[in-house]
Amino acid sequence: MAENKTFNVAVVGATGAVGEKIIKLLEEKDFPINEIKLLSSKRSAGNKLVFKDKEIIVEEATDDSFKGIDIALFSAGGSVSKRFAPSAVKHGAVVVDNTSAFRMDENVPLVVPEVNEEDIASHQGIIANPNCSTIQMVAALKPLQDKFGLKRVIVSTYQAVSGAGTQANNELAEQSQQFLNGEEMQAEILPVKGDEKHYPIAFNALPQIDVFQENGYTFEEMKMINETKKIMHEPDLSVAATCVRLPFFTSHAESVYVELDQKGLSVQDVWNELEKANGVVLEDNPSTQTYPTPLSAANKEEVFVGRVRKDLDYENGFHMWVVSDNLMKGAAWNTIQIAESLIKNNWLKN
Amino acid sequence: MAENKTFNVAVVGATGAVGEKIIKLLEEKDFPINEIKLLSSKRSAGNKLVFKDKEIIVEEATDDSFKGIDIALFSAGGSVSKRFAPSAVKHGAVVVDNTSAFRMDENVPLVVPEVNEEDIASHQGIIANPNCSTIQMVAALKPLQDKFGLKRVIVSTYQAVSGAGTQANNELAEQSQQFLNGEEMQAEILPVKGDEKHYPIAFNALPQIDVFQENGYTFEEMKMINETKKIMHEPDLSVAATCVRLPFFTSHAESVYVELDQKGLSVQDVWNELEKANGVVLEDNPSTQTYPTPLSAANKEEVFVGRVRKDLDYENGFHMWVVSDNLMKGAAWNTIQIAESLIKNNWLKN
Repeated sequence: MAENKTFNVAVVGATGAVGEKIIKLLEEKDFPINEIKLLSSKRSAGNKLVFKDKEIIVEEATDDSFKGIDIALFSAGGSVSKRFAPSAVKHGAVVVDNTSAFRMDENVPLVVPEVNEEDIASHQGIIANPNCSTIQMVAALKPLQDKFGLKRVIVSTYQAVSGAGTQANNELAEQSQQFLNGEEMQAEILPVKGDEKHYPIAFNALPQIDVFQENGYTFEEMKMINETKKIMHEPDLSVAATCVRLPFFTSHAESVYVELDQKGLSVQDVWNELEKANGVVLEDNPSTQTYPTPLSAANKEEVFVGRVRKDLDYENGFHMWVVSDNLMKGAAWNTIQIAESLIKNNWLKN
Repeated sequence: MAENKTFNVAVVGATGAVGEKIIKLLEEKDFPINEIKLLSSKRSAGNKLVFKDKEIIVEEATDDSFKGIDIALFSAGGSVSKRFAPSAVKHGAVVVDNTSAFRMDENVPLVVPEVNEEDIASHQGIIANPNCSTIQMVAALKPLQDKFGLKRVIVSTYQAVSGAGTQANNELAEQSQQFLNGEEMQAEILPVKGDEKHYPIAFNALPQIDVFQENGYTFEEMKMINETKKIMHEPDLSVAATCVRLPFFTSHAESVYVELDQKGLSVQDVWNELEKANGVVLEDNPSTQTYPTPLSAANKEEVFVGRVRKDLDYENGFHMWVVSDNLMKGAAWNTIQIAESLIKNNWLKN
């Protein structure tokens, strides 16, 4: 592929929180764009956005929107992806989808480039971007899987409200001010906009992200469990998750317990692998109180790992604290990385 | 012991967050008090507090303060307990100590009445109140230990700032307002007042509670690990902890993974034991989005448990979400319970 080749790119969900980040990254990374098309629902169509100093009018997504498009980046919710991704593929575009619509489809690669970039090659027009909380965990687990093998994973998450969208952000800000003013907090969005009950998130913690499944786990928890097995190519890996929404705007943090196949390892052995891993930054020094936090990871592309400790009883058990910006590596940046890989490896044709 | 017998009670740390709760509970529970003495540091001495409509002047604690005292309730920090608890004992008082000063002393019972009330009987003048995050966890684990046996416990905590004192509460409120105003947040207290570095807690998460130990764990994590084994009389129980400070004022929440000795159990089996356990309230119904949160547990005495799920891979593994007011069951209420037990069981003489 010619070095100077450029591509027609569509961003579906251009006015959403992730869409905005995608557009910003396409600019910053100087993505090889010939023409960019910004698509949205009817409601947001007509809005004007600026891309590389040029004003672009957001258009309503239709089946015909994808004519001539090479790469379509979807982040407008699962129903929009289900409705329009097939049209995009029919018109010859390759879709990178940020929703849960196709993630567990066996014909759709589910990709975190640092973990399973080669899966992109087998796409049939759609590549799925994993759930935000899954992405950062598998990025941190991959170097340990490669070197030591994985036996089991138990994760408890500390997730930002921005994963529930801009309205959830607004709700946190409003409730926080209400609480500080001594007023009653109004809860209308979280934990799940479409669910029956809503609870205040400000100065609180909600152990529900997405709706409950029949087995008592939430859909977010099942996403972490199932997606991790698929991305890491370990259908038999034991993964358990408890997902909790917390009152901060950006970055998910995760308390991860991992049991390795190999025994007798030290914290230094684990540090060594994390330190040289792609996309992972080790921030771990108890003597200087060095560890990542949601605020310190905000607006960054990498996955940050700290608090690596050896379990005091299980010879092959380690605990760690994994933090990353849920809208960046957890969504927009991982999407851009997949698109870049499609081009770099000449995997674009579907 | 005569039913109408009353006692001379000293509250050390009367002006602190826990001290205030203790005084309030002594009132509300109609604790059989003959005379109450409110003690503090020199700095807070002279303050006036109201107990049962009577104004009481807070006095500076000295070795002589404990003459004639039957029960001394300490919550003024470890150094104050180390300095004055022996004086109180020498004067014939029984000390219930809320600090970490004596918890791991083999001559000092470490007690959560729902778990090991009988340990109080062997006291030699001092009974220790466990760490807040430990108390609520062992209260929830005890019914499972009794019926099914425990194999291992892995906990990730979600802890309120009030565990770090009134100044930390003020810091969270101030930083929250600064952030909402678009101003820079000032961090001077958390994660640990006496430690070198301070980070904002508002709209953030800090994976450090108390200072780091040589093994890479924080002191809070080691408290949970060691105290749990002592209270539950299982020195060989595997316990692992990751402790995280979060931006809410009241109640600690905990994501607890527990492996039981007995296999083949259902969620219903676990529910049955939790439902009839003393001091535990089961709030667990996914179909109605029923689970405890820090706000829902605030100002209550009980330990609330929800989100009970069977591990999807480990036959004897269960996950649950445990929430309790860290200043109530986690501190003041547990202290009062111990004092009540001393009287009820005629265990007061040291």
